[in-house]
Amino acid sequence: MRILLTNDDGVYAPGLRALRQELKRLGEVVVVAPAGEQSAVGHSITLLTPLLIQEVLDEQNQPMGYAVEGRPADCVKLALLELLKDRPPDLVVSGLNAGSNAGINVLYSGTVAAAIEAAFFQKTSIAVSLEYTKPKPLDFPRAAQYACRVIERILQEAPPPGALFNVNIPSLEKGPVRGVRVVPQNIAAYQETFDRRIDPRGRVYFWSGPDFSCPQPHPDSDVDALGEGYITVTPLQFNLTHQARLEEMKGWAWSL
Amino acid sequence: MRILLTNDDGVYAPGLRALRQELKRLGEVVVVAPAGEQSAVGHSITLLTPLLIQEVLDEQNQPMGYAVEGRPADCVKLALLELLKDRPPDLVVSGLNAGSNAGINVLYSGTVAAAIEAAFFQKTSIAVSLEYTKPKPLDFPRAAQYACRVIERILQEAPPPGALFNVNIPSLEKGPVRGVRVVPQNIAAYQETFDRRIDPRGRVYFWSGPDFSCPQPHPDSDVDALGEGYITVTPLQFNLTHQARLEEMKGWAWSL
Repeated sequence: MRILLTNDDGVYAPGLRALRQELKRLGEVVVVAPAGEQSAVGHSITLLTPLLIQEVLDEQNQPMGYAVEGRPADCVKLALLELLKDRPPDLVVSGLNAGSNAGINVLYSGTVAAAIEAAFFQKTSIAVSLEYTKPKPLDFPRAAQYACRVIERILQEAPPPGALFNVNIPSLEKGPVRGVRVVPQNIAAYQETFDRRIDPRGRVYFWSGPDFSCPQPHPDSDVDALGEGYITVTPLQFNLTHQARLEEMKGWAWSL
Repeated sequence: MRILLTNDDGVYAPGLRALRQELKRLGEVVVVAPAGEQSAVGHSITLLTPLLIQEVLDEQNQPMGYAVEGRPADCVKLALLELLKDRPPDLVVSGLNAGSNAGINVLYSGTVAAAIEAAFFQKTSIAVSLEYTKPKPLDFPRAAQYACRVIERILQEAPPPGALFNVNIPSLEKGPVRGVRVVPQNIAAYQETFDRRIDPRGRVYFWSGPDFSCPQPHPDSDVDALGEGYITVTPLQFNLTHQARLEEMKGWAWSL
């Protein structure tokens, strides 16, 4: 099996390195990932500036893949259309992200966008993220072991082309992982704040606050299950059509 | 009625100006839009750099709203949580974008992401884009008239909080608009290319090609209806859960 591995934290991120080590058990891993950090870039793509690429070596000075001066979705597009076109991957994995991607954060996530981009190309693709807990450094090697077991389990079912999954690993600081739950994406808004400040030139600016939370409980959602210490698996799709409303709107009369 | 107007082409873009003129017929319009061009940024948000804001005047030197050094989704978030919190808008409009946002391009679009962000806050929100045809400048004033009539028609139905719509106006160079069609988002991949080059320092880079097309016909989709000269209206949602696969996966046994 040939695996394309990407992420949004950049090609030198420890989460990607840890996941690569584990994925090597499953097959040949080629990394095509952003040269620098690209968190919260969503499904950005690069149209107006060139995508510079550079070969990257691993810790043993062996070829590992490419760093791309672009977004996570650019990396996948470029990998599938150019860099790996002669030997296309069977599976695309994005991660292991530093920080969970659950609830509506899924839409901001560069990690998930890279997996969605791969699904556009009918690849089986899996985004994997590790919940962040502030004081401690993240235990990527252990989280990558869990991630890889979940990936293996998904592949056992031989998912159809374009099948897309979002996996979150709970913070390992909270205690033992309680199991795996298949849950939908939570769609409630987070509570967020901005911090208003004045710069030395008298201009107003805002910092996005670091804390956001879903105050009400949302049982049977990715956000709550992850909070309770479960690994969450959510199958995703990228058809944004609101089907029920579409049917209803077909009855509307229109005049220009 | 109070309307928040944003876009991804930037606060000085002619499409935004033209749409603002038309929307003033419907109510008070406040602009909160990116300071510069932000096309294809998807649902990026700004977490690690400050969001500088500046008041912006219109052609008559009257206050028009704010320019934000950020992404389209940042503009909506900042407007709803801070800038307009004392007099929140009843409607959020994003556009008029230079270039259509149909098919899977909906996921790359900063214009649509701004509308989705507003829907997170339970606002009625409408993204509006004008199909691009290469040789001629876009006729934004006339397209804005069509856009505003579609917006009025949607509002007549008093859509529920958080209702979200994606509207595309066909290029007016192709002949008279043929009518309005309510259609789903096309989910087929585009055919795209990259142009491989070598820089003066011997480094490899790629340009994303300007042309992408959906070669097979997709009847009853936004892409095809727009191509045929119809205004397209697609109700959207942002729950990415693949519901059918979720149900199927609930039967899977998991072991760690």
